[in-house]
Amino acid sequence: MPYQLHYWPGIQGRGEFVRLALEAAGAAYLDVARGADDEQGMAAMAHYLQDASVARPPFACPFLVDGKLVIAQTAAILLYLGPKLGLVSKNEADRLWTHQIQLTIADMVVEAHDTHHPIAASLYYEDQRAEALRRAADFRATRLPRFLQWFETVLARNPPNAGRLGAGKALHLVGARLSYADLSLFQLIEGLRYALPKAMRQQLRRVPHVAALHAQVARHKRVAAYLASERRLAFNEQGIFRRYPELDG
Amino acid sequence: MPYQLHYWPGIQGRGEFVRLALEAAGAAYLDVARGADDEQGMAAMAHYLQDASVARPPFACPFLVDGKLVIAQTAAILLYLGPKLGLVSKNEADRLWTHQIQLTIADMVVEAHDTHHPIAASLYYEDQRAEALRRAADFRATRLPRFLQWFETVLARNPPNAGRLGAGKALHLVGARLSYADLSLFQLIEGLRYALPKAMRQQLRRVPHVAALHAQVARHKRVAAYLASERRLAFNEQGIFRRYPELDG
Repeated sequence: MPYQLHYWPGIQGRGEFVRLALEAAGAAYLDVARGADDEQGMAAMAHYLQDASVARPPFACPFLVDGKLVIAQTAAILLYLGPKLGLVSKNEADRLWTHQIQLTIADMVVEAHDTHHPIAASLYYEDQRAEALRRAADFRATRLPRFLQWFETVLARNPPNAGRLGAGKALHLVGARLSYADLSLFQLIEGLRYALPKAMRQQLRRVPHVAALHAQVARHKRVAAYLASERRLAFNEQGIFRRYPELDG
Repeated sequence: MPYQLHYWPGIQGRGEFVRLALEAAGAAYLDVARGADDEQGMAAMAHYLQDASVARPPFACPFLVDGKLVIAQTAAILLYLGPKLGLVSKNEADRLWTHQIQLTIADMVVEAHDTHHPIAASLYYEDQRAEALRRAADFRATRLPRFLQWFETVLARNPPNAGRLGAGKALHLVGARLSYADLSLFQLIEGLRYALPKAMRQQLRRVPHVAALHAQVARHKRVAAYLASERRLAFNEQGIFRRYPELDG
């Protein structure tokens, strides 16, 4: 049985972090809400969110269905999939560290989203634009550098990365192999570059390991094929990462 | 070796979710930054956050030190501690579900915090009060009921809870035993009642399972002893849950 990924059909959103892991591993999966078959589409996703027969309902999508298991929360899905997809170390300490990094990426995703929705997800951007201008200014000045600097530090201190940046060799957040956290950091940087191109041009110069990891993941054979495919949705102004030039300073 | 918990000494904050698990289990731990010994205090915490010798530095506190392991992110700490403290099922599906619930609690904690800091954690409340009024109004009207209703649904659909609410018997979020998620939901409700007493009086009437679980955890022998001790800090206006009456509608 292929994995079933349930997520909104029109945006990359949080579903994309899961999709990238499945794609990079070459795993068989159904993108259920985007599917055209009878048992797919939005109704199939709504079943898990709304039907009283679901014993353990997700609070929100994305969620993964694997047999009887229904797993929501992006970081929890990746915690579960990581070992199955070969995208995390078998060592417990490494797994916990990879999960920690993923949870920090998730925290930054919330803050990136809230730059354009600081008051309420239920309101339009235009109805909270004044507040968004203030929040985005703080995000660019304090939060963006702080998060990026932490990822840079993690990469710089990972022993197998020593000497690899100058030599143009592959870098990893954890140990000497690709993990789902590397894929998620790629996606985070990709989204921030879409949303805040000016701020990110400046910031990425200060975090060369992060910039190199981002470029390297984009060249990963299966990731590159996925990014060039129709399965990869374009960024847009309904997702987490939105390009509103006034928020880019 | 006792566990070392590192967190800001003056607030409950996110550290409290970890502290409650350690206390409920009767585990030996040091609350490092609050300690007076030479190897304790803020400098001991700052070491892990700032020293270049730390291979895997936390992004922020709370973090737990257990031998060579340094684990940050509240939900990851509880994922690690749960089995060791007997505060989670041994079954993988139950563990993942408990973790999912914890991550959803963590999401609500962010939103509760942002009611008073919708623009920037680096600014005073007074400098973002107008925005806080708007954000808190949306939180009370849409987010608070939505999260609470989900916890209510989780409790109502947990098979071992059937018939127990009316009979005044113990309820659990997962299966038939106390988990760290039960303790964290207690803390979340306790904090929200402190911050938004009016809104919570109304809301808790609509989620009787949640209200009963909250009351039941407060009566847990070791939890009750802890809450009455000097180890339990009082809520205050430096933490996540702050009482600003104007934000309570």
